[in-house]
Amino acid sequence: MSSVHQQSIVIDGLIISKWDKSILEDMRRGGLTAANCTVSIWEGFAATVENILNMKQLIRENSDLALQVRSVADIQRAKAENKTGIILGFQNAYACEDNLGHAEAFADMGVRVMQLCYNTQNLVGTGCYERDSGLSGFGHEMVAEMNRVGILVDLSHVGPLTSKEAILASQKPVCYSHTLPAGLKQHPRNKSDEELKFIVEHGGFVGVTMFPPFLRRGIEATVHDYVEAFDYVINLVGDDNVGIGTDFTQGYDKGFFDWITMDKGRYRKLTEFGTILNPEGIRTIGEFPNLTAAMESAGWTASRIEKVIGKNWLRLYDEVWTV
Amino acid sequence: MSSVHQQSIVIDGLIISKWDKSILEDMRRGGLTAANCTVSIWEGFAATVENILNMKQLIRENSDLALQVRSVADIQRAKAENKTGIILGFQNAYACEDNLGHAEAFADMGVRVMQLCYNTQNLVGTGCYERDSGLSGFGHEMVAEMNRVGILVDLSHVGPLTSKEAILASQKPVCYSHTLPAGLKQHPRNKSDEELKFIVEHGGFVGVTMFPPFLRRGIEATVHDYVEAFDYVINLVGDDNVGIGTDFTQGYDKGFFDWITMDKGRYRKLTEFGTILNPEGIRTIGEFPNLTAAMESAGWTASRIEKVIGKNWLRLYDEVWTV
Repeated sequence: MSSVHQQSIVIDGLIISKWDKSILEDMRRGGLTAANCTVSIWEGFAATVENILNMKQLIRENSDLALQVRSVADIQRAKAENKTGIILGFQNAYACEDNLGHAEAFADMGVRVMQLCYNTQNLVGTGCYERDSGLSGFGHEMVAEMNRVGILVDLSHVGPLTSKEAILASQKPVCYSHTLPAGLKQHPRNKSDEELKFIVEHGGFVGVTMFPPFLRRGIEATVHDYVEAFDYVINLVGDDNVGIGTDFTQGYDKGFFDWITMDKGRYRKLTEFGTILNPEGIRTIGEFPNLTAAMESAGWTASRIEKVIGKNWLRLYDEVWTV
Repeated sequence: MSSVHQQSIVIDGLIISKWDKSILEDMRRGGLTAANCTVSIWEGFAATVENILNMKQLIRENSDLALQVRSVADIQRAKAENKTGIILGFQNAYACEDNLGHAEAFADMGVRVMQLCYNTQNLVGTGCYERDSGLSGFGHEMVAEMNRVGILVDLSHVGPLTSKEAILASQKPVCYSHTLPAGLKQHPRNKSDEELKFIVEHGGFVGVTMFPPFLRRGIEATVHDYVEAFDYVINLVGDDNVGIGTDFTQGYDKGFFDWITMDKGRYRKLTEFGTILNPEGIRTIGEFPNLTAAMESAGWTASRIEKVIGKNWLRLYDEVWTV
């Protein structure tokens, strides 16, 4: 493991893996200081509370490996104590159902990141796999409430018009926590150069993913293709507002991918991923140090690496979570 | 009471009054054979089930006045037994939340009419008080499911694009259960001549309301203005696909009107109704015979009156509910 990786705060802006002890152990192997961990996709309020309680129990039972992150100070404590900080995150505001107050209740439970829509239309806006109607009136109220209670607005799976209107509506910076440039591969989940520039010009942030269906070389990709995608984004928007958002799906089988690619987890099929195989060199969370090594071999300065692998997310989280 | 009113099946396509014994008594006074009675507006699944159970209990406790309608035969039985048939209806598909199966469960409970959206965006489409994004993918699936289980699609409070796409998507006739012509008064809730013609040309139906904020003369109107609105619609689309949809709000106070005019019943205000006072001559459900009398004094034939006050709804219900 390179000394930069070892000494730095390393943050993954999006992991959706099947939460169990083996994942927490692999996070330690990979030297991960903190990660935004998805605990809601299609679930409504009650089922999401259940997911959160399960995650908190997992953390409690593995307090030698992990701690729950409620503030940036908790991330720094995780680094000092050689643990991984678990940030609770949603990929769909539908967990709040029709109630803005649920956003505050979830913030109380420690939820710090919430994507507005997952793939399709919900009460606040529209996802990236259907005609996008923009941010609804309720969506405007939701963004304001998330600003107030300190939940980061995530737009990765959100449609282009809803994203643009959310970027303009939010009083706090917003992010694409896990996306790739459409300039490298056209895909409904990837963002155009204009979109990547627009979010950063408005104070926002881009987490770069490596989810194979959206990568230029798909399952042929290696960790160097992942660095290529970072380079593409950094060339467009600079290196101060870019971070990692792997979208690790570790531990999941076909049933999970069917669930996430059908509307509400059970209706019409929205997309076909094909085989999922993460880039060679970073197939598992434990191989995280290889990403830093690939950045080094690509000639990145230590300062750039430190920013992209963690410092940038840390600054953004601090700005949004401090209310 | 005119003999036409007394002998006919009289159906009100939309009543949202505060359900209690006094309303059932007034329905008898008004000679109402059946009415589509709203039991969900902003409520989610569980609260809507509660509303339905309350309504069924009310019917059970007043079985001398009312019976629950599950089929057109029940409406005929209500006529024969001098009772009012209560048709369970929703004004918002949000009661189904994210679950198409809930539509079937509600059909099992006896729900026979469901408006797709109430005023704002939900998972299936958009209401008439905000930018309309059209019928969502899930909305297409919902319309197909309602067709399958025999629930009439209502579009009264639905936006123009969502309405148009629902009219085209549905395999069964759909309705505006309670609307007025924009040709008499411009209002987000009123429908243009083109919209009224479009729904009827596609096998659909128009229920004409008398809710004062949408009437040309507002609270100055009398029952004759209500007949004027019927005449306007009939001149456009003929008299075979037109019925009554009063939108009686009997028994409700200001708190109710605040609740229905705020998104989800508690967020931003969508419209201001001002004073609510039904047209002179038909201020209460018990005055229903005055509507038939006003049709007679306007020179309508007995055949037209019979169709508009009940036979047309009966035919439509039969077509949609028979699965």
